[in-house]
Formats: sequence, structure tokens, C-alpha cells
Amino acid sequence: MTHPSSANFSAVAPSDAELALIDRYWRAANYLSVGQIYLLDNPLLREPLEAAHVKPRLLGHWGTTPGLNFVYAHLNRVIKARDASVVYVCGPGHGGPGMVANTWLEGTYSEIYPDIPEDAEGMRKLFRQFSFPGGIPSHAAPETPGSIHEGGELGYALVHAYGAAFDNPDLVVACVVGDGEAETGALAASWHSNKFLNPERDGAVLPILHLNGYKIANPTVLARISEEELRALFVGYGHEPIFVEGDDPAAMHRQMAAALDTAFDSIAAIREEHRSGVASQRPRWPMIVLRSPKGWTGPKEVDGKKVEGFWRAHQVPVANARGDAGHRAVLESWMKSYDPDDLFDEAGRLKPELAALAPKGERRMGANPHANGGRLRRELVRPALEDHAVDVPEPGKTTGEATRALGRYLEDVFRLNAEARNFRLVGPDETASNRLDAVFGATDRVWMEGIEPYDVSLSQDGRVMEVLSEHLCQGWLEGYLLTGRHGFFSCYEAFIHIVDSMFNQHAKWLKVSRQLQWRAPVSSLNYLLTSHVWRQDHNGFSHQDPGFVDHVANKKADVVRIYFPPDANSLLHVADHCLATYDRINVIVAGKQPAPQWLTMAEAKAHCAAGAGIWDWAGTAARGEEPDVVLACAGDVPTLEAVAAAGLLRELLPEVKTRLVNVVDLMALQAPEHHPHGLATDRFDALFTTDKPVVFAYHGYPMLIHRLTYKRTNHGNIHVRGYQEEGTTTTPFDMVVLNEVDRFHLALEAIARLPDQGAAGKAAVADLRRRLAEHRTYISEHGEDLPEISGWIWPYGSAARTGD
Amino acid sequence: MTHPSSANFSAVAPSDAELALIDRYWRAANYLSVGQIYLLDNPLLREPLEAAHVKPRLLGHWGTTPGLNFVYAHLNRVIKARDASVVYVCGPGHGGPGMVANTWLEGTYSEIYPDIPEDAEGMRKLFRQFSFPGGIPSHAAPETPGSIHEGGELGYALVHAYGAAFDNPDLVVACVVGDGEAETGALAASWHSNKFLNPERDGAVLPILHLNGYKIANPTVLARISEEELRALFVGYGHEPIFVEGDDPAAMHRQMAAALDTAFDSIAAIREEHRSGVASQRPRWPMIVLRSPKGWTGPKEVDGKKVEGFWRAHQVPVANARGDAGHRAVLESWMKSYDPDDLFDEAGRLKPELAALAPKGERRMGANPHANGGRLRRELVRPALEDHAVDVPEPGKTTGEATRALGRYLEDVFRLNAEARNFRLVGPDETASNRLDAVFGATDRVWMEGIEPYDVSLSQDGRVMEVLSEHLCQGWLEGYLLTGRHGFFSCYEAFIHIVDSMFNQHAKWLKVSRQLQWRAPVSSLNYLLTSHVWRQDHNGFSHQDPGFVDHVANKKADVVRIYFPPDANSLLHVADHCLATYDRINVIVAGKQPAPQWLTMAEAKAHCAAGAGIWDWAGTAARGEEPDVVLACAGDVPTLEAVAAAGLLRELLPEVKTRLVNVVDLMALQAPEHHPHGLATDRFDALFTTDKPVVFAYHGYPMLIHRLTYKRTNHGNIHVRGYQEEGTTTTPFDMVVLNEVDRFHLALEAIARLPDQGAAGKAAVADLRRRLAEHRTYISEHGEDLPEISGWIWPYGSAARTGD
Repeated sequence: MTHPSSANFSAVAPSDAELALIDRYWRAANYLSVGQIYLLDNPLLREPLEAAHVKPRLLGHWGTTPGLNFVYAHLNRVIKARDASVVYVCGPGHGGPGMVANTWLEGTYSEIYPDIPEDAEGMRKLFRQFSFPGGIPSHAAPETPGSIHEGGELGYALVHAYGAAFDNPDLVVACVVGDGEAETGALAASWHSNKFLNPERDGAVLPILHLNGYKIANPTVLARISEEELRALFVGYGHEPIFVEGDDPAAMHRQMAAALDTAFDSIAAIREEHRSGVASQRPRWPMIVLRSPKGWTGPKEVDGKKVEGFWRAHQVPVANARGDAGHRAVLESWMKSYDPDDLFDEAGRLKPELAALAPKGERRMGANPHANGGRLRRELVRPALEDHAVDVPEPGKTTGEATRALGRYLEDVFRLNAEARNFRLVGPDETASNRLDAVFGATDRVWMEGIEPYDVSLSQDGRVMEVLSEHLCQGWLEGYLLTGRHGFFSCYEAFIHIVDSMFNQHAKWLKVSRQLQWRAPVSSLNYLLTSHVWRQDHNGFSHQDPGFVDHVANKKADVVRIYFPPDANSLLHVADHCLATYDRINVIVAGKQPAPQWLTMAEAKAHCAAGAGIWDWAGTAARGEEPDVVLACAGDVPTLEAVAAAGLLRELLPEVKTRLVNVVDLMALQAPEHHPHGLATDRFDALFTTDKPVVFAYHGYPMLIHRLTYKRTNHGNIHVRGYQEEGTTTTPFDMVVLNEVDRFHLALEAIARLPDQGAAGKAAVADLRRRLAEHRTYISEHGEDLPEISGWIWPYGSAARTGD
Repeated sequence: MTHPSSANFSAVAPSDAELALIDRYWRAANYLSVGQIYLLDNPLLREPLEAAHVKPRLLGHWGTTPGLNFVYAHLNRVIKARDASVVYVCGPGHGGPGMVANTWLEGTYSEIYPDIPEDAEGMRKLFRQFSFPGGIPSHAAPETPGSIHEGGELGYALVHAYGAAFDNPDLVVACVVGDGEAETGALAASWHSNKFLNPERDGAVLPILHLNGYKIANPTVLARISEEELRALFVGYGHEPIFVEGDDPAAMHRQMAAALDTAFDSIAAIREEHRSGVASQRPRWPMIVLRSPKGWTGPKEVDGKKVEGFWRAHQVPVANARGDAGHRAVLESWMKSYDPDDLFDEAGRLKPELAALAPKGERRMGANPHANGGRLRRELVRPALEDHAVDVPEPGKTTGEATRALGRYLEDVFRLNAEARNFRLVGPDETASNRLDAVFGATDRVWMEGIEPYDVSLSQDGRVMEVLSEHLCQGWLEGYLLTGRHGFFSCYEAFIHIVDSMFNQHAKWLKVSRQLQWRAPVSSLNYLLTSHVWRQDHNGFSHQDPGFVDHVANKKADVVRIYFPPDANSLLHVADHCLATYDRINVIVAGKQPAPQWLTMAEAKAHCAAGAGIWDWAGTAARGEEPDVVLACAGDVPTLEAVAAAGLLRELLPEVKTRLVNVVDLMALQAPEHHPHGLATDRFDALFTTDKPVVFAYHGYPMLIHRLTYKRTNHGNIHVRGYQEEGTTTTPFDMVVLNEVDRFHLALEAIARLPDQGAAGKAAVADLRRRLAEHRTYISEHGEDLPEISGWIWPYGSAARTGD
């Protein structure tokens, strides 16, 4: 356990001279921010501003930027005074010009991008590239040094900040939360993250709520409620708010410096108390409320309309600076109000007395290694899969709970990486419900509130994070991964849609960051979707939605992977594989209920590595023999039904040659030119034939299979059955029957697709229909499945077993 | 404006005798709740409990239920005492047995479902059907009388409650918020809804935070923070909390009765002050914090483990009541502890002195007409489309902003329905940004905080609702629609994914409710997705995601519709149509930027009604003539590019017969057996041919078009171009080029798919490549699109114009 260095304790208050320097630094950042939004050329305004110097398309967000720059300049002072390690999470990410400006001022920008040097020419390029084709985007994107948070879609700043702080005991994550963003659901819930942060082992988050009063075209809620309510709200959230309010720069500098000193003193005190054992209760963490005008220091009015301190400052306050000389004059005098000659030397470099204000080396917020977490990433130590293999003497003869086996594996992951403290399991109160509770043998759930004697697996030192908010689970994990650690997110399948848009943003981040050489790879975001659509016994229709994988499949092939392991050993293999990958998002779908086991660990390895394979023992076609019909399946429940359907066909139409193909890696179905996991055409055709009917039992919405296979030779013969959005609180078998993906419907479909089987075929159809009706009657009378369905085992031998 | 009736003011505190009756009523509801979870038969326990009486599968959630029943019983008293109109929103919806029990006790259940009468046989059926195949689901679902909220996916109770309260001045929406649910993002943000509720014209929401302490397997955050923080939090949220805490029923009854009297008195006082003009500031609304044990009155321990007051009470506290005699004895004594013979008469009816406690008629919460809002729904008065038509003298010769035209139409909608007060426009701070700001000619944004003299279109009486939370926009609108009103949600396309899961739940609600005869149809939920993927000039990659429609397309065909109107008149027609529909979710995707206009209003009507059609003027194939290639398009930007590609082909390869097909109604592409809007095969083939190449320029992810058309004759020849997840902050034309859906790529693809065009073809390809390169160079040098691209107009005549 790290002990705080005394350097983190209070420095003396800054002198007026020092504050005057900070003001100049701030002006430099503001100048550079405006320049990025407006200028193509003439960066230092050493010539009169002409139309040709102004960009033809003015894009960007000024309103939030001066506040972000103000915070940055003051954090620089605190970092230097205390030798603190600080990461800056910029909630209003569209204040991107501010982040770029500051990292250029401190030198990190030019180190990373040597073609943008620290001089007038560099400044010209810096301005030109912003929001310019082939240049950089307008947000605090992966391209922005020091950023782990894009802020394009608002709401996730604070939860990312907490993710970064966990298990980084020396880190302070300063997180600017915009008052617009504060209205979102994710952000509103994020304040309670402090109930899960342990000052003894974790870093600190310093939220800075930036009340600049307005969104795009409206006031913000938090800026207009009374100060009494505002204070109460943050006390209620577990914080001690410090208010910094005004618009006079000199007064504001003094207030802000004092507020940051108070906050950092308080953080240092909390650390000392907790790490020396004096305190153990959750502390009341400091936070800062910074109330400053939107578009502060910008034009007060344009065309007679209020701009500074109003929503008109949100994007580009002077709209027609290229076409209108009057507007251009406003822009010029605005930029000159920062007095660039007082800030930059002849060559366009920041003057030395200002450059000296920035921290050095990795203390610069643009260069803090936690903000490029791949650099700090250590490989996760993974247990031997063999130690966790489930014994499968013969396919379908034994049952097991796949996620329970995974829980034991994850328990070992916690043990093996206990010292590294770089693995977390997150989930919305479902670790036990999802049957991963073996992990509690190695660790607890983290909990900073009171703990009762009868509480179970709850402690301040736990590494399992449970809160009833998928947003927090996702956001914590993203922040944790982006700062170089590992994790796993287990979730009810239907409710992962709650974070569809967060998934989007993370996928977009990865797509861009993996193209940036200087960004070191980060661990993949791994989802286990369980308690899935087919087994929602307690909950019913509202809990049934297998569509997240459809959403995932829209993203760049480089980034996403989707797995449907059919049993425990294959789940173990897939999960183990995913934990070793980086820069990806892996989605694993697997049930938690007792289910037949099919593959030994050796078979599971071969089968999962292949992505899809023939289960010879299940079909009647001999190995290498062309079948009459292919029964394909993806997903544990559909696999069970497909194997059972194969059994029914074997019983009723023994002459028909059937083949069972199981698909684990859904992306194997896609054409190889669409996805790197796509099976080569000959391999695909070898599995699915080029002209035989394929009855495909799929876990989710059938359309996804059509969409993935539409380029395949035999696509016209693939008949997919899956979830049809039919469901309620009912028995497991009734669920598959409602959606017509049960063994009887599958066998009936196979017969319908085969050449006419004559009298035997007719008899088989009649028999299947009778059995289906029998089951329906039994279920509605008894409220449970017929024992021979729910306890069904594969009744045949498996001499030719193979998992390839 | 309605004035409060004095009957809503304080009644005298209930006597001990009255409270004793309430306690018995509560016990009856608890008894019926347990019975639903456990019993197949022997409902009144008049025989000794045997295994055969117990359900084989025990499903349901006991933990929250006694608290819900407690609230219900006390609300009944208040409703009667004050003749109040109250709707009960049950956040912990899996307390479904409680809602069913109470509506059965008050008689509404048997009125709606006469096969479940109010007697012993009815009770037996009531028990049996719960979570039973063919019966009712376990949540407060559409099947549950009085419910407008399922509560399967947690987080939306409070926002639904507010939606129900808007414009219902006499209504009180009592909303039980579970402490698990309170951890979600959507709920955390919902508390601020009171900033948008005007007591002068709106009803009241009475939140009842139910702290029963535990989720599935964890304590809850709000139940374990200090009372000081808890109180501060709700004061911060703008409430005056009233605490009801304990576990002794008698004391709790007294506290709860007093708390509700205080709360209803406070609501009555607020109404009177605001409606008489005495007060105008946002009031501090009452709320109740109810702290009671989870599984209250259930078994204290089972198998030596704590159950009551702990998370083990969450679902089924006595797990093996059928198989284990000991467990069965626990169940029997638990149920008998409610003393059923003291509650129900010989015939199994609730005893008359208890039945008298329930309100009568529509005052019963299960029968409140607002909870079956279709019954109160009045048709929206819609303006004449002709009054808003954009003049289109010739296709492609004029430009217009589609959403601006829609804004003027919606302005009229507000005017025409001003008196009915039954229409709201919601959006996350984007009404003006999305160019719908003409609506501010008719109404303002609603705002209950202070209003500054320089604020714009902001007032307490506004009917536009803007908050930076898609969750709140969606939830308010759902609540508003389900209580019988109309609305429209305008949103940035990318960020509508934030409410993917809320969309799911609403679609599921509609799928079920439209099958229930007694549920009257409610107005459709209408989305306008704008500021779409192709025009995110200020924002870039993070704001680019057209995948919501993919998500929507997974839902039941009866429920969903997706429209891509290509211009202003078609947008007007589609929006007008959507506003007239019911029980659906309509998604309209349309840009806000100036764009070419193609169709007169008459043409737009015919074209939109057909769903898709040939634009003869754009192609070179004569009407009725088989083309060599079809250029298809859906979406405004792809339509522009496809028309331009047709122009390029006309110029470069005048011998090639092209046909342009525009698709407005995306579901027209699906096979008619998959969607009611699916074009008949002959009509589809007449548009897309049976064997000619089709180059399809699509707004979103290309796979959706493949998936929708995979059953079509000519599917193998459909080559789709759309968003490939490539984007950044760049020019509009560069965006289409990055994704290869620009006019040049489309024309090149058409040529590649045509039979060899010889030298002319080669020359055309070279020319197209040259122009493409020229544009790329120009863009990267100038930072804007070549004027002849950005100002492009259709350079040909249109003698044969048609919009069919």
C-alpha cells in the first residue's frame, strides 16, 4: 500500500504575481482555442486579419472552452506545487480546442506530432488542422494527448474518471462535468460512484462541476436551481462542495487557486487518514462548483445580441468572420484582447516565464501515462484451462452450468492477479444471479457504506463491482481499461441494450486509437451476456431481447467479436481467449442454467479455434459424407434443440443423412472480406454444403444470420429460426415452442426442406406434430415441461466424436 | 384552468379502528400475493397444504410486494377521503402479484377478466395463472389493470409518472421507486423532472422511495447512506421528504397515514396557491421515504438463514415448498399468519367491511381511466398539408430545409390543439438546432426555474420540453402517450441509441397491449431523427451512427415503421401520417440542412403512400421500359447522390438506360409476409426488375437493406452502399466519399455491374476517377466542398416527372 508523499500536502497560496502569470497562460490557451476555430493562416495576427485567413467552414465549440482552459491552467499550478499525478477528464469534450491548446502549450502535442512544432508555423498548422478535412476532430478524441474520454456523447465523464481512479492509489482524476452533461441519466447516477471507491487503495476523483449556465439553446437545470438546493444535492451525493463563482478573472484566479488547494489538501488528508488506519468510513470527498460565464472572455455581444454568458456562445460566436468585415473585426479584436505578443515570442513560442508554469515530463496532463493506459498495461495472468475443465465423458450425457465453471475460473484470475491489482469484475447486482459466485472465494463486492454482520461477500477491499446501473458498470470498466487494466462485465442479456450507445462510443474510440501508433493497445472490453432470452423464468417478456449482438455486428470488423459457446468448456476457452486480447470488444453469450455438456476441453479448444465445426456424433452422415440436410446451430439452447432434432430425425427417418454444424464464433459466418474471422469460402462450403438445405437454429433474431451469410454460396438454402419476439413468463421449453425454434419445429422444417420422404416422411410429420401438441397440453396443465424434455439426454453413442 | 376541489384538502387522521381495517386489507393483499407465487390449488388453505397444491415452478418476487401492498392500501384511504384521482406507478414492477392482488380486491380485475371472479374459484384461478404458461406474466404488465408501467427493466417509473401528470391538472400520480431502481441512470436523472412540471396546469407526482434495503444480492446505496445525506439529496432534487420508517405494522400504519395526509395536503396547497395566482415559483413538492423490511411479514428465517429484511427475500423465500415438507410448513404458517378466514368470507369474497375500504368506480386505481389512456384519447387536429407545402417547380432546382418546413407544420399543430392541451414536443435541447424553431411561434419551452429577461422562448406555460437527457424525453413522452395524449420526439440520430432499451420496452408494451381488447389504442410514439450521420459538421465521428433503425427493425412488424422522406414535402406527409396513427412506433429520418427538393406535395403524397417509386425524370429509361441498371436510394443524402449519379451516367454513357427508385417507407422492401407494408412481389419486381443490377445508396448500415430484401427475386443483384463506420469532422461531401456512397462511387459501381460498355465505359470510368480525385484534393486544400458539388442542382428537365 502506497503512503502519500508529503509533497501532496498544501503549498502556500500563490502570490498575485504568480496568479498574473497563470492569467497570461490562460489567455494563451484561450487565444489558441479561438485560433483553431477560426484561422487558416496569420496565426499570430501579425498582419491585419483578412478574409483569406479565416476558415471557410467555422466549426467547433467556444462556449465551454475558456472554462476548461481556466481549470487546466490552475491544475498545472497544483501539480507542480505538489508533484501530483493528475489526469484531466474533459466532460464537455467538444471543448476539444482547449485540450489541444493546452497540450501544445505544455509541449506534449509537438512531441507526439512533430509536424506541429512549438513555433509560429506549428501554430499555423495547429489552427488549420482543427475540424479540417484530413485534420483532427473537434472533440477531445483519441487523437488528443492526455484524453481517455471523447465527450462527444455526453454523460460519461465522471464514470470514466472513477474507472481511471480505481487501483491507482497515487492518481487524482480531475473531472470537469458540464452542466448540460449533468442532466443526463448516466452522469446523474455517476455521482454515487464514490460509494465504491476506497481511499486506501484507490486514487481520488475531483469532480469540477462547470456551471456555465447554458446548453445549445437553453439554460441548464443545475445552473438555475437555488444555491441551497445545489449544495444540498452534492452533500446528498456524498461530497463537500467548494464554490468558485464570478466573472472577474483576477478574483476568479484567487478563488480557484484556493479551491484547488483546499480540495487537494482534503484529498491528501483523506489518503493519510485511510492509509494510516485512522479512518475507515467513506469520507466526504471534495468537489468544486465552478460558475463562470459561457464563452467567458469572448465577445459580449454580436449584432446587438447577448453572447458572452449566454447560449449564443455555445459554438461559433462570430458566425460570418470570413464573409463579413464587421464580424471579422469583432474576431480580430477578440483575439487581440488576449495580447498574443505578450504571450508568444517572435518565433511564436510560448514565452519562457509562461512555459515554466507547465509541469514537466509525465506530470504534464497531456503526457500522464495513465491517459495512454496501454503503456502501463501488464498482461493478465490466466489460470490453466485444464484446471477448470468440466469432465465430459460423452456428449450430452452430463449436465453442467457453464457460468458456474466460469466463476471458478474467474476466481483463479482474481487470485493470480491479486498483487497486480489490475482486474475487476463488474455487473449490475447479478454476479451471484449469473452463477459466477465462486469469485467470492477470492474477493468480495466492494462497498464503502456500513456493513452489517449478516451481509455476504461485502467489503471495502472487494474487487467485484455491483451497482444496479449498467451505465456505471460499463463506464467504470471503460475507464479502467483505458488506463491499462483488465476486466469483465457480466450482464443480463436484455438489459445490455441500456448501454448500446456507450458501446458505440467505446467501439469508435478503439477504431481510431488502434490507428494511432503512439496509443499503446489496451485490454479488450469483454461482455458475458447471460440470463438470456431463453431462460427468463422469473421475468418474462420484458427481459427477453437478444438484439445486442445485432447492434455490435454493425461496428468495424477489426474491433468486434461475438461468441456463442455451446457449453461449459467452450465458454471457458472463449472467455480465456478474450481476456488475452486487446483493442477489441468481445461479446460472449452463454446461459447459466444446467444444460447438457457436449465437448471435452480438448475438443472445445479445437472447435472454438475453428469458429464452427461438424459434430459428427450428432448427425447420421458419416465423416466426409455429403448430408441430405444440415442442422446448424449457434447458442446453447438452440444447440440443445438442434441436437435433439437430429435425434428425432435419426429415430423417425433413419435413412436421411443429417449433419450437425455448431457455430461458436458468429463472425465465422461472414465472408472473409467482411471480417477477419470469416471462414474461407471452401471451408464454409465444406460445412454448409453448396446446395443442401440448412436449418439453422439461432439464439437471436434470425435476420442476423441471413445478413452475415448473404454472400455465401448456399445462402438461398439457409432457413433460420430464432427469437421472433414471442415470449412471456413461461417454461423453458414453451419459450422455444412459442418461437418455433424447438426440436419438433426444427425437425419438421428439415423434413419440409428435404425431397419427399414418402410415407415415412408423412408418418414422421404426424408423429412430430402429435408430440408437439402433447407437450403443449402438458405444459399448460402442469405448468412445467414434460420430464422427458427437461431432463433430455442424447440417447445415442458417440464413437466418432469430434469437436472440430 | 381547473380549480382544486376542497375535497382534496385534509381529512381527519384515521382512527385506530380504521387503521386496523387497513391492516386487514393489507394482509389480504399480502395473502393473495403469496398465493399467486405458490399455489395451484387450495387457495383459502381450508385443507392442509399438500405438495400437489404447490406450483412445480415457483416464480415471482416477494421482496418488494408487501411494501407495494402497504402503499396501495393507504392510497385507497386517501383517495376515498379526498375523492382524489390517483394513478399508481409501480416502479418495482416485478411486484406484479401485489398489483394483481389489489385490483382483484377492489373488483377491477374481475370486471376486466370475468373468468377470474371475486370468489374462491376466482382466487384459485388468480393464483394458478400467475407466471404460469398461458397465464399472466410476473410483472405489472399491460395485462395488469391500472398499470401504465411494466417495471421489467428498471429505471423509468418516475419519468413515466411525470409524463402521465403533464396536462392532467386533477391527477396525482403516486410513484413507488424501488431503491434498486434508484441506482439507475434514468431514475437518477428523473428526479429533476419537477423543474418541468407546472402546478397551475399539470397534475402532481408523489414519489414514494421504497427503501427496503436490498437488490438481488446486495444492499442498495440509498438505504445505507446516512439519513443526513439522504435528506440532503432529496432537498437537492427539489423535494420535501417525509420519512416513514419501521417494521411494526401498527406504528407504520399510523406513520404512513399521516405522511400521505401531509403529502396530499401539501399538493392541495400548492395547487391552490398556483392556480389562484398567489405563487408562481416552483414549489418544493412532497415525497415520501418509506423504509420497511424487504419481504416484510414473510418468513424471518429459512433453513437458519436470515430472510425477512434481507436480500434472500427478493424472489421466492421458501424455495422448495413442493418437494420439502418442512418448507411447505413454513409456507403454510406464513400464509396462515395473515388469517385468511378473518379476511375472506365462506365463498372466498373479501369481507364487506374490507371491501368498503376500496374507492368506487373510476376512483379505483385499477380503473382510473388515465391508466388506460386510449379511453381518454382525442384525435389530434392536424393542419392541412397544403398550407405547408414547399413549392417545387421542378425536381432538384430549388433547395429547402425539410425540418424547417416541419417546424412550421408543428407550430400549427400546437395552435390547433392549444385548447385540448394534448400535444407535446420533446427533445434534448435540440429543437432549434434541429431547425424546428418555428414552433416557438406558438409555444415556448417549459421552464419552472427563474427566467432572465434575455432568455428566449422560455416560460412556465411552454409545451416544448427540452432537457439534455434522451431518457427523460423518451420517458416523459411514453407516460404522456400511455395516458391518452400525443407527441413528437426530435433527436440527433446518433444519440437516440441512448434509449434503445426504452424503445424495446415500449415496443414490447405495445405488442402486448394491442392484443388486449380492453386496452384502448394509444397514439404512436413518433421519432424524428435528424442532425444525422451525413451532416455532423460540428461534431464528427462520435455523432455518427445510423443504426437505430436496425434496432427498430428487429421488433414486431405490427408495431414499427421506418421512413426516409427524401425532401420537405415528403417529410411533411410522413410526419402528418404518423401523427394520425396509434399503437405504433414511427421512426422518421430526415436531415435539417438545405437540400434539393424533388417532389410537389401531390407527388409526395402519392410517392409516400406507395412506399417506393420510380422517379422517371431522373433516369433515362422511359416509363415502363426495362432499364439496364437501377439506381435505388433511401435517405435524403443518398437520394441526392443517387440522382447525381444518374446525371453522371446520363452525361457519360447516354446509351445506358437507367432507372432511379426512391424508397421512403423502408418496410416496403420487406417481403409482404414479414411486414404489412412489404410490397407485393410483382410490385417489387416491377420497381427493381428481376435480373438487372441494382446499385442501392442507403442512409445507414448497408446490411439492413440486404436483410430486408433477402427474400426478393432480384436480391442477388442488389449492391448496397451506405455508412461504413468511416467518419470524422469533415465536409459533407467528404463524408459520403469516405463511405463510398457519393455520386462518383455510385456511378462507378453501376458501370462495373453493367455489361462491358467498351471504350465509352473505360472513358467514363477514367473521367469519374479523375473527378473524384479532383474533389479530394480540393477538399483537403480548401477545407470545403467544390462549389459545383455543394451547390449542385439537377441539370436536366423533367417533362415526365412523377412521384409515384
